[in-house]
Amino acid sequence: MPGEFDFIDWVRKQSLASPRLLVPPGDDLAALRWDASDLLLVGADQVLDGVHFDSARHAPRDIGRKVMNRNLSDCAAMACLPAAAVATAALPRDTPLEFVKEIYRGMSASGATFDCPVVGGDTGAWDGKLVLTVTILGRSAGIAPVTRSGARAGDGIWVTGPLGGSILGRHMTFTPRVTLARELAPRGITAMIDISDGLSRDLGHICAQSNVGAIIEAERIPIHEDVMKLPPDGRSPLEHALHDGEDHELLFTAPGDFAGTATRIGTVTADREIWLRGADGTRAPLERKGWEHALA
Amino acid sequence: MPGEFDFIDWVRKQSLASPRLLVPPGDDLAALRWDASDLLLVGADQVLDGVHFDSARHAPRDIGRKVMNRNLSDCAAMACLPAAAVATAALPRDTPLEFVKEIYRGMSASGATFDCPVVGGDTGAWDGKLVLTVTILGRSAGIAPVTRSGARAGDGIWVTGPLGGSILGRHMTFTPRVTLARELAPRGITAMIDISDGLSRDLGHICAQSNVGAIIEAERIPIHEDVMKLPPDGRSPLEHALHDGEDHELLFTAPGDFAGTATRIGTVTADREIWLRGADGTRAPLERKGWEHALA
Repeated sequence: MPGEFDFIDWVRKQSLASPRLLVPPGDDLAALRWDASDLLLVGADQVLDGVHFDSARHAPRDIGRKVMNRNLSDCAAMACLPAAAVATAALPRDTPLEFVKEIYRGMSASGATFDCPVVGGDTGAWDGKLVLTVTILGRSAGIAPVTRSGARAGDGIWVTGPLGGSILGRHMTFTPRVTLARELAPRGITAMIDISDGLSRDLGHICAQSNVGAIIEAERIPIHEDVMKLPPDGRSPLEHALHDGEDHELLFTAPGDFAGTATRIGTVTADREIWLRGADGTRAPLERKGWEHALA
Repeated sequence: MPGEFDFIDWVRKQSLASPRLLVPPGDDLAALRWDASDLLLVGADQVLDGVHFDSARHAPRDIGRKVMNRNLSDCAAMACLPAAAVATAALPRDTPLEFVKEIYRGMSASGATFDCPVVGGDTGAWDGKLVLTVTILGRSAGIAPVTRSGARAGDGIWVTGPLGGSILGRHMTFTPRVTLARELAPRGITAMIDISDGLSRDLGHICAQSNVGAIIEAERIPIHEDVMKLPPDGRSPLEHALHDGEDHELLFTAPGDFAGTATRIGTVTADREIWLRGADGTRAPLERKGWEHALA
């Protein structure tokens, strides 16, 4: 019966081309050289069976790709370059070794797109369902990290792509906007976030952390064509674009003009209220209906 | 009903005294300043309800402490200084917010012992049981990382404390040997690991990665007094000391003399076999019976 050390042995044999990696996976910790001029950015995102994916329906390689891409998208949101990742897996007891390798291949392939090797981690078997966690290390590489807290009254509010309906498949297959973020950041972006919890909620994060408000123009919000394919649920296409999560497009604020690269959907205000303005000029508070995990 | 953002807001209000931390928790990623002379060490360990702890029996603060201490112990094994940690929690849907705060307090208190703040993470609620993951960042701080791969024939094999019976409670309450590791490392240690999977298996890791063997002297192995308190299970005290896991003492190899600080239990050999020698001089292969998660 193969065990976790067979998996670790297998991982150790995967080629890892990183000039930064001095002690590779398989020791207590990996060791990396870190450039003095680079700030170190770090964070983690997990995916849970039945919440972020369905192990009965999604391929293990796609699940691995998703958890890595969620983390790479966090790098995009800060405009840093991914540098290395650490992964853990809580595996149902009957998980075949090949399934675990496929998860790893998915993570590894997504990371490799951005020179971001998986340099360590931990696996364990249990009586529960599949949990994958990735911690990402990013490096500033010449661009100051873009936080959520720099938006200023008068800035435009922009999104990098159409929103809504990711549940039809894009939540598993989105491309992290790392390259685009690196192009945008030097052009005066004041705050940025990736849309994971839904536009309304993620805009709320920027406004709260920047101590500002916003007016969003309803008719300017780009609605993804997937929204039209959703089974009817009583919600309008606009509501899906405002509140569906896991688009992983970038939402940013800036004084400049980004036409051609992004879509302007509104304006930052000083008063801390967030409004949705219709085509007829009437406005209503924008409710935050996006994704939040409830705690008791 | 409180949600994950209430928890994140609460975390953001906890004081974090780290001169390295430029962007604190609450953004997409935390940002740290990293000293040019410091290698960056990184790895992760998770704890699973029903495997590493029992949420019906162990207090949330102790569970948080354990997952952090397992990671701090990995820093000890590499002789680095803990610098920062990132934590994720997969929470049963009915988890009270106070329970999550208690987990965080446990993690945070353990980390604080070594100036190692929790700088980021992710929480999610699901229909499964509790999973906690911590990723640890360590810094070399003037001492080259001690790997598992440097043991040489003729080196002594040493342990820093008595082994076995951790299941009676020490697996939840052990102290990571960070300070001791930093004292030992400059004294010519060639390989080191923390005993998490059991002496026999962790010695096997050092021997495999160093391409060496070992002779262990049965009567020299320090047996923890907890072993005598275990209910009879047909295994000898020596077997418990050899194979029980989660002692988190350090196992290291070195040519020097560490009497007074550690106990010498054997000698590294060139032939890649691992032997257990009895008081009468007879020897038998040392089976690796320690902890391994089975995969199908």
